[in-house]
Amino acid sequence: MNLKKLFKPESMAVVGISKKNPLSPGRIIFLKNEFEMTVKVYGIHPEGGNLEGVTLYKRLDDLPEIPDLLVIAIPADVTIKYVQDCADLGIPACIIIGGGFSEIGNEGIIRQGKLEKIAFDSDIAILGPNCIGVYSSPLLDTIFMPTERITRPPKGSVALISQSGGVLVDQFFHKFSEINIGVSTAVSIGNRAVVDETMLLEYFSKEDKETSNIAFYLEGFKLNRARNFLELAKQSEDMIITFFGGLTEKGKRATKSHTASLSGDNRILSAALKQNLIIQPDSEIEMLTFLKLYNILSRKKKPFEENMMIYGNVAILSLSGGHGVICVDILKKYGLSAVEFTEKERDEMKESVNPVVRYIGSFNNPIDLTGSAQDEDVENITQYLSNIDRIECIILLILPYAPSISFQIGRRIANIIAQKKKPLICFIPYIQKYGLIIEALELSNIPVFHSIEEAVQAVSALKLRTKIHNIKKELKLGY
Amino acid sequence: MNLKKLFKPESMAVVGISKKNPLSPGRIIFLKNEFEMTVKVYGIHPEGGNLEGVTLYKRLDDLPEIPDLLVIAIPADVTIKYVQDCADLGIPACIIIGGGFSEIGNEGIIRQGKLEKIAFDSDIAILGPNCIGVYSSPLLDTIFMPTERITRPPKGSVALISQSGGVLVDQFFHKFSEINIGVSTAVSIGNRAVVDETMLLEYFSKEDKETSNIAFYLEGFKLNRARNFLELAKQSEDMIITFFGGLTEKGKRATKSHTASLSGDNRILSAALKQNLIIQPDSEIEMLTFLKLYNILSRKKKPFEENMMIYGNVAILSLSGGHGVICVDILKKYGLSAVEFTEKERDEMKESVNPVVRYIGSFNNPIDLTGSAQDEDVENITQYLSNIDRIECIILLILPYAPSISFQIGRRIANIIAQKKKPLICFIPYIQKYGLIIEALELSNIPVFHSIEEAVQAVSALKLRTKIHNIKKELKLGY
Repeated sequence: MNLKKLFKPESMAVVGISKKNPLSPGRIIFLKNEFEMTVKVYGIHPEGGNLEGVTLYKRLDDLPEIPDLLVIAIPADVTIKYVQDCADLGIPACIIIGGGFSEIGNEGIIRQGKLEKIAFDSDIAILGPNCIGVYSSPLLDTIFMPTERITRPPKGSVALISQSGGVLVDQFFHKFSEINIGVSTAVSIGNRAVVDETMLLEYFSKEDKETSNIAFYLEGFKLNRARNFLELAKQSEDMIITFFGGLTEKGKRATKSHTASLSGDNRILSAALKQNLIIQPDSEIEMLTFLKLYNILSRKKKPFEENMMIYGNVAILSLSGGHGVICVDILKKYGLSAVEFTEKERDEMKESVNPVVRYIGSFNNPIDLTGSAQDEDVENITQYLSNIDRIECIILLILPYAPSISFQIGRRIANIIAQKKKPLICFIPYIQKYGLIIEALELSNIPVFHSIEEAVQAVSALKLRTKIHNIKKELKLGY
Repeated sequence: MNLKKLFKPESMAVVGISKKNPLSPGRIIFLKNEFEMTVKVYGIHPEGGNLEGVTLYKRLDDLPEIPDLLVIAIPADVTIKYVQDCADLGIPACIIIGGGFSEIGNEGIIRQGKLEKIAFDSDIAILGPNCIGVYSSPLLDTIFMPTERITRPPKGSVALISQSGGVLVDQFFHKFSEINIGVSTAVSIGNRAVVDETMLLEYFSKEDKETSNIAFYLEGFKLNRARNFLELAKQSEDMIITFFGGLTEKGKRATKSHTASLSGDNRILSAALKQNLIIQPDSEIEMLTFLKLYNILSRKKKPFEENMMIYGNVAILSLSGGHGVICVDILKKYGLSAVEFTEKERDEMKESVNPVVRYIGSFNNPIDLTGSAQDEDVENITQYLSNIDRIECIILLILPYAPSISFQIGRRIANIIAQKKKPLICFIPYIQKYGLIIEALELSNIPVFHSIEEAVQAVSALKLRTKIHNIKKELKLGY
């Protein structure tokens, strides 16, 4: 099957455009692609005519060309006819938006079976049914929510594949925009009658140059496809992250009515993911943190040396004792540790700060420069820590409330990291007025997080990346 | 000791005002209170003169009145002199901002001992040293960070007591503003040489009418004061929440250099807190969620019946199957459960929604009305669930991306809850354009959260509140 036609179509047609109801999914999809996206789009309506000045065609075989992709947004019982049209006309890819298939039980299962037969017989890459389709900026967007309602993520390296359209649009698109994670292509697989997570893993891993990280929201693997998925994941050069919903007993039942899939034994699942070098985050927040970091490391201009974090040895530099205490508490939870400083190191650090901080600050790890710290103190200590080899990563907790910390601090830190290339993860509170500091760091590709826990998660993501990278390298080399 | 003079002074004086350095803590505190707060404030400067047109006095005994409170923001070695002045002049309360006491070791411990002696001999309520003092809007604010740098929380029912000034200003003030939790008084206790967490618990619990929830960030109890604290907590009518930093081994050492306190055995600590009806949240986010809910329930106008949640039985109403699945997964973690619907209930719910949702929606728990839901469907099902007695709380997951959900949905839900009084917790993504919906719910005191996990935490907070309330009631009644 040619998945490229699904994700990079030159032309597409939309069926299910209502002339009366401005909120009909087909109409929203048609107008969105016509006016906002670059793909060539044709609208199909049994009566022809036009919509907002754009010609509608009565039938698929009236179109001036055979489109690469057909989007079907009509009730389930009349959907099959259009799938058959794809087979007859040679349309290679198809997205079915509507529900009313395997997720509703017997009647729907039979209906979905018919659809699968046509697809496999005629080699049509069908996405769905019961899905919201594909988002790939600037080319196409088949999400049937009105543009003014949704948030669109920035462009980047993450391919995003979700068994739930709602989770894709809300938990991912919205959060990805908020914390600046870039997406190459987003795919809602719905009932995954034909195109499934395994085919997508293969496609994004091997064929899509834009993608270097692949993230999944799944409620279980498609039947008999898990082995293939795991094997592909192990061989992939991309970072692969899966978040599973429906792992509790109640969740499993909820899953069943949602997308008619069943997740298996959780411990076996977790072990299999681990063995096949697939990351399974503990929470959605952790998933987002990992993706944010990996997306940054997939950029051409790297902020620091990557895949260097073997032991998890961290130095914490804070402007508040309490923040340091909380941070060091969290380190343990993530299998990281705070390095010990020698007396010589402590003395040298003390020498490099202003007299008040020298007197009241603390130079153990976590270092507490207190609210009396100045830009130069933070800069000097960061520089100093960058030169200590056994420190694999610095966690910098910037509290810009301190009167003598200026808004230059972001650029000043970025400059040090640009020279030293020592991994550094930053925490800064997410307050609009500190946007300048955050922006300066992000423009230099330094990962910035807005909770202490996420900053620590990012360090653990760095360690995990090194580990997976090294295993994959060894696997490739053999003995 | 008269803590009222510390938190509700009619007049205060500030020592440590620099005429040259606009960022000196004393100067920031003086000008902040002079121009922004309602307390009568006097500035002390050895040369007298004036600052921004406001007269400075050379000595404390030059002042036209004996102030209720003295704020000292000068180096440690000259601080004692002013504390002695308090004793000599009869100033009943004092805040010491500067560090250089017990947290720096021997020399500082001796210095702090002197200060304690004067305080206890002369009954002076000293806050600190090594602290940022008190924030109580609109009366006074001794936080030495410039106003334009910090975020101030709204006014409300939570007294906030922190051993770390940084944690107070950042993790609490900032987050409290963001998620709208109201503060009565905030206190940074620093080294707590004299005024400690136990005295504050007693004061806020018994004497402060504005406060009905008391939250602590501590890195351990003050030596020999734990028993007293626990006893007071058990008797208090307020909800008491403590978050402990420094509970890991490394954290303990970090704590020691931070505020010179040592936390004991964690399991013993947790058990003691539980027995004394003190809530110990698992994370900062959980603490914030609890406080948000309790602050709402402390308002005069309650959104729903409180202290009714005995079993933890929940109904989940979602517009996205995936959100329902994730929510039901999280329930278990918090000791809650999704009720089972009878066939009759499922059928009746189906009857009350539009035909598309009736066909493709799921009416098990979690209920999934899908992206085809309209306002009326959400309204009808919420109303229906409100009438089922065994449901103790509804979790409503509103996804306003769905084309047929209007921005009226907030008011419509608020109206149902106003009549039915069934507890309802709402999840809505935190996106500016959905502010209208969020605002409508919050104005009606319905708790709104922006992650599914926080919504579930809020339900568990409701259950915990019922439990603690009932135990306290029984304790009071006896047998």
